[in-house]
Amino acid sequence: MDPLDRLAATIRDRRGADPGSSYVASLFAKGRPKIAQKLGEEAVETVIAAMAQPDKIVSEAADLIFHLLVLLADADVTLDDVRAELARREGVSGHTEKAARNA
Amino acid sequence: MDPLDRLAATIRDRRGADPGSSYVASLFAKGRPKIAQKLGEEAVETVIAAMAQPDKIVSEAADLIFHLLVLLADADVTLDDVRAELARREGVSGHTEKAARNA
Amino acid sequence: MDPLDRLAATIRDRRGADPGSSYVASLFAKGRPKIAQKLGEEAVETVIAAMAQPDKIVSEAADLIFHLLVLLADADVTLDDVRAELARREGVSGHTEKAARNA
Amino acid sequence: MDPLDRLAATIRDRRGADPGSSYVASLFAKGRPKIAQKLGEEAVETVIAAMAQPDKIVSEAADLIFHLLVLLADADVTLDDVRAELARREGVSGHTEKAARNA
Repeated sequence: MDPLDRLAATIRDRRGADPGSSYVASLFAKGRPKIAQKLGEEAVETVIAAMAQPDKIVSEAADLIFHLLVLLADADVTLDDVRAELARREGVSGHTEKAARNA
Repeated sequence: MDPLDRLAATIRDRRGADPGSSYVASLFAKGRPKIAQKLGEEAVETVIAAMAQPDKIVSEAADLIFHLLVLLADADVTLDDVRAELARREGVSGHTEKAARNA
Repeated sequence: MDPLDRLAATIRDRRGADPGSSYVASLFAKGRPKIAQKLGEEAVETVIAAMAQPDKIVSEAADLIFHLLVLLADADVTLDDVRAELARREGVSGHTEKAARNA
Repeated sequence: MDPLDRLAATIRDRRGADPGSSYVASLFAKGRPKIAQKLGEEAVETVIAAMAQPDKIVSEAADLIFHLLVLLADADVTLDDVRAELARREGVSGHTEKAARNA
């Protein structure tokens, strides 16, 4: 199983759990504004790593994806919904490119 | 193949391509600051969707992951590097939790 | 008059104006999510200028303050409210430091 | 004196001070990436306050301006440089509008 999906499943399982039981449970308990804030902060850290701390990029990207998975779970959407959206765009884009090549 | 990896491969293939040939090629040509800026902007849009536009969350999350994949490619790291980091943490965390249970 | 207050007054005057009449009027018409998004984006650009484009810092800081003034006007708070908050903290901080010195 | 300028002067005075002597001195000691990170984080918190926590807007805007003043000091530019940039734009914009009215 893709580690991303395994992690997403672990995160979903912690919704509604005792806030003291894990970091993720505490984030869900604090609610959407705090989850969104953490996502924004991790994006800022990823930007700064990208500009000046290349050895931190993988770690910051992991933090960013982690908190995005928490946000998606809080919003009742799945990583597969996001994969489908990306695949749909790629299909449209591929199609458009093919049409353009044939034009 | 995971659509995320297929997309990451497509993105990597566009490094060094004619900037006029695609949006991704144009981003690579503009360089790291512009790529990081786009990542930050998409994170802001995801935050706002999370707070007030739930029907846009999937689309904004797709934009965010897309630009994160561009940033990773520009930094010569892969989504698998990020998966490995997340798996490593999960292992550590599982280990820590197990140790705590046995304590 | 402080250019910041003159600008804030100009911005306030454009609330409710025809969205086609100015950039600020168009922002107010688009509403709070768009105004907050612009603030976030300008902050990202300021971060990137700070990291890699020192000659752009003044210009990006001006963009950031400009959009902060739009957000404050949209929320019916003034720059003087923010000044008062900063002065209040400085007073508290000075007091605390004084108490600490006497301790 | 404008509390913003008084605060900016206080902040400038703390450059080079013992990092343990104040929060601002500790920020300067940590360097540009940490200062930029804090600015970005405060912008995220302002965005979230603007979307869902109206009673926090003044406080978050104060945090944002505070950290912007630290960043400006670290970059050796002043709030007056930013005021001049905003005034310059207003002049250009007034001029443009006047030209447009006469057109």
